[in-house]
Amino acid sequence: MNAAAISPEEQLETLKRGAVQIAPEGALLAKLKLGRPLVVKLGCDPSRPDLHLGHAVVLRKLRQFQDLGHKVVLIVGDFTGMIGDPTGKSRTRPALTLEETRENGRSYFEQASLILDLDPERLQVVYNSQWLEPMNFRDVIALAARHTVARMLERDEFQKRFRAGEAIAIHEFLYPLAQAMDSVAIKADVELGGTDQTFNLLVGRDIQEKYGLEPQVILTMPLLVGLDGLEKMSKSLGNYVGIAEAPETIFSKLMKVPDTVLSDYLRLLTSLNVEATLAAGPVAAHRELARQVVRDFCGAQAVAGAEERYNEVAKGFIPEEMREVGVPAEELDATGAVGVCRLAVLSGLAASNGEARRLIGNRGLKVNGETVTDEKSRVMIVDGLVMSRGKDNFARIRGL
Amino acid sequence: MNAAAISPEEQLETLKRGAVQIAPEGALLAKLKLGRPLVVKLGCDPSRPDLHLGHAVVLRKLRQFQDLGHKVVLIVGDFTGMIGDPTGKSRTRPALTLEETRENGRSYFEQASLILDLDPERLQVVYNSQWLEPMNFRDVIALAARHTVARMLERDEFQKRFRAGEAIAIHEFLYPLAQAMDSVAIKADVELGGTDQTFNLLVGRDIQEKYGLEPQVILTMPLLVGLDGLEKMSKSLGNYVGIAEAPETIFSKLMKVPDTVLSDYLRLLTSLNVEATLAAGPVAAHRELARQVVRDFCGAQAVAGAEERYNEVAKGFIPEEMREVGVPAEELDATGAVGVCRLAVLSGLAASNGEARRLIGNRGLKVNGETVTDEKSRVMIVDGLVMSRGKDNFARIRGL
Repeated sequence: MNAAAISPEEQLETLKRGAVQIAPEGALLAKLKLGRPLVVKLGCDPSRPDLHLGHAVVLRKLRQFQDLGHKVVLIVGDFTGMIGDPTGKSRTRPALTLEETRENGRSYFEQASLILDLDPERLQVVYNSQWLEPMNFRDVIALAARHTVARMLERDEFQKRFRAGEAIAIHEFLYPLAQAMDSVAIKADVELGGTDQTFNLLVGRDIQEKYGLEPQVILTMPLLVGLDGLEKMSKSLGNYVGIAEAPETIFSKLMKVPDTVLSDYLRLLTSLNVEATLAAGPVAAHRELARQVVRDFCGAQAVAGAEERYNEVAKGFIPEEMREVGVPAEELDATGAVGVCRLAVLSGLAASNGEARRLIGNRGLKVNGETVTDEKSRVMIVDGLVMSRGKDNFARIRGL
Repeated sequence: MNAAAISPEEQLETLKRGAVQIAPEGALLAKLKLGRPLVVKLGCDPSRPDLHLGHAVVLRKLRQFQDLGHKVVLIVGDFTGMIGDPTGKSRTRPALTLEETRENGRSYFEQASLILDLDPERLQVVYNSQWLEPMNFRDVIALAARHTVARMLERDEFQKRFRAGEAIAIHEFLYPLAQAMDSVAIKADVELGGTDQTFNLLVGRDIQEKYGLEPQVILTMPLLVGLDGLEKMSKSLGNYVGIAEAPETIFSKLMKVPDTVLSDYLRLLTSLNVEATLAAGPVAAHRELARQVVRDFCGAQAVAGAEERYNEVAKGFIPEEMREVGVPAEELDATGAVGVCRLAVLSGLAASNGEARRLIGNRGLKVNGETVTDEKSRVMIVDGLVMSRGKDNFARIRGL
């Protein structure tokens, strides 16, 4: 797409779609009128390299900027990543080695490349250790002098902890300032992020101004709610759809999106007309969503296969391809049988005998399509026996 | 004095004299029992190189440590001195050049040497840029991770400003941490300071422990009230007695110490028995104080002369020696006279005509011993004319 062909006002309309906040909107319009490619920043956390659809919401907005002729700069936060939590108290901030930050940065980039335009004129990946590593104590003091304690404590998370009497270590005030230096270093015109990043983005704006730069415009996108319909999508909560998952997994997960958040998914992850799509009914709308997302991340040729597989499973069919599991001879009794709970564990369908028992209690485990009702029953092992959990988790048992 | 000859318990008794706080006292006793010279730290601000008797209170306590066999380390805070106030807003924190910090450090040392033992086994002067300059952003984060925002805000001054909604810049939290690193770098056993430094000294204690060191003991001394009897002694308030002033100036200033704070001066600046000295009456006690301090700072041979000069002035005598002032010919009228207010300004007795008028109104200005009553009067300039303000400020006018 040629940026010159689209007026700044039209660009603004496109960019506003789905955004929670553009601040200040007038400044974005003024920057779009400059007629040069804008520098659009996104900070990436190299300690969490697995991207899911929550990240895709922001990456899709970046892609829009690219398509309008602007330049995206992905900042891999390797500097703070390598520091981790200096107190060693937090397990969520492990210190990474240089190799890990590079490896994670590459992995992040590979996944992001499913969405972004890789043209080097439109995309640049940089590591922030490049400008943060050379800063000395004096530079840090000069940076810290440009922001106040009171403004830092306005941040929601800090305010809550401060009021609750929970410790905030002083270096936590330095991380937002380090991110702000990223904006100074690359002279960002715009910075994107989820709404949970609003505070940091504003600090960047403020610090740029203190360093004599035109302050960046901030653009925030909604946080995608996970498959549970309740919490923000996150890998640790298990309510996520990974960008790099198999097409059939993405398809079947998206068919389970709660109706209450379906319109958000359509709006934030597709270019479909949301109202028209929903008007066809929830099942049809789910299918449209799943097709679009699989097409975007796995390619058009993957859609039909993924949908077919989903249909088979939905009808209760046993799919042709599934993982195969061998049962060691020592597990078998004299009759060549094994307890049903033990078999569920051996085949990877339950994590423990206890889980297997609960599964059976909930009528969630089948052998050759028959629901298991007695947790004490034993199963004769024959080649080709199929055990399944729910509608989409199958294992084929190999005979000895 | 030989440290080995004095028991740790006796040392502790000596060191407690005049101190406001020793924390923890048990830890000081334990350190004294180690039988090795303790490292006793004092931080010096190189942006305020003129020492007065307020500083002498702490320096005298350091001298006691030296006399007991311990080693004093004076830390010249050149690192923060060279940074000054990075926002440029504060006129009280001008950024110093390397030369200025060195020059001020030397000046500080010269004045302090009037009190301290200069034996290199007992005294060391170091510049904190030595260890703070090489610290990078990563080191600063590691340092800042070891202290909390809440504890920093417990500091009186911060708390007041925070509650009043006055800005605290984030780098202000880094200065106490930098001072604490000084304690880490020199492995201080004890740090001294005025009571206004208590917070910083405690941060030093805390950070040393976080860096795996035995924490320093803090010892605070009272803040000496100035000659106004109200405020802390300070050069900017003009209520001070400088360590390097002339003997007669020190003597006459000390004779003016308000009775309400006389016992503090005796206790903190001399080794006299305070009660016995005061029992002789306030004038005699003032004389004893003045003699002791002049002896300490100017040498025993200076005492008699300073006291004699004071006596002369007190009796209204005109001293033999005083500064001489020439009056430029263009100031004189046709009769060779000049206005009395103008003459007071030219002779350095008043800062302005306005001040001269007020002085005359208060009957505080004399010409050849006669009180001036008319601010409009004119004085014929003859060689040897003496003009005076109060009892101890004289100027002799030279004829043309």
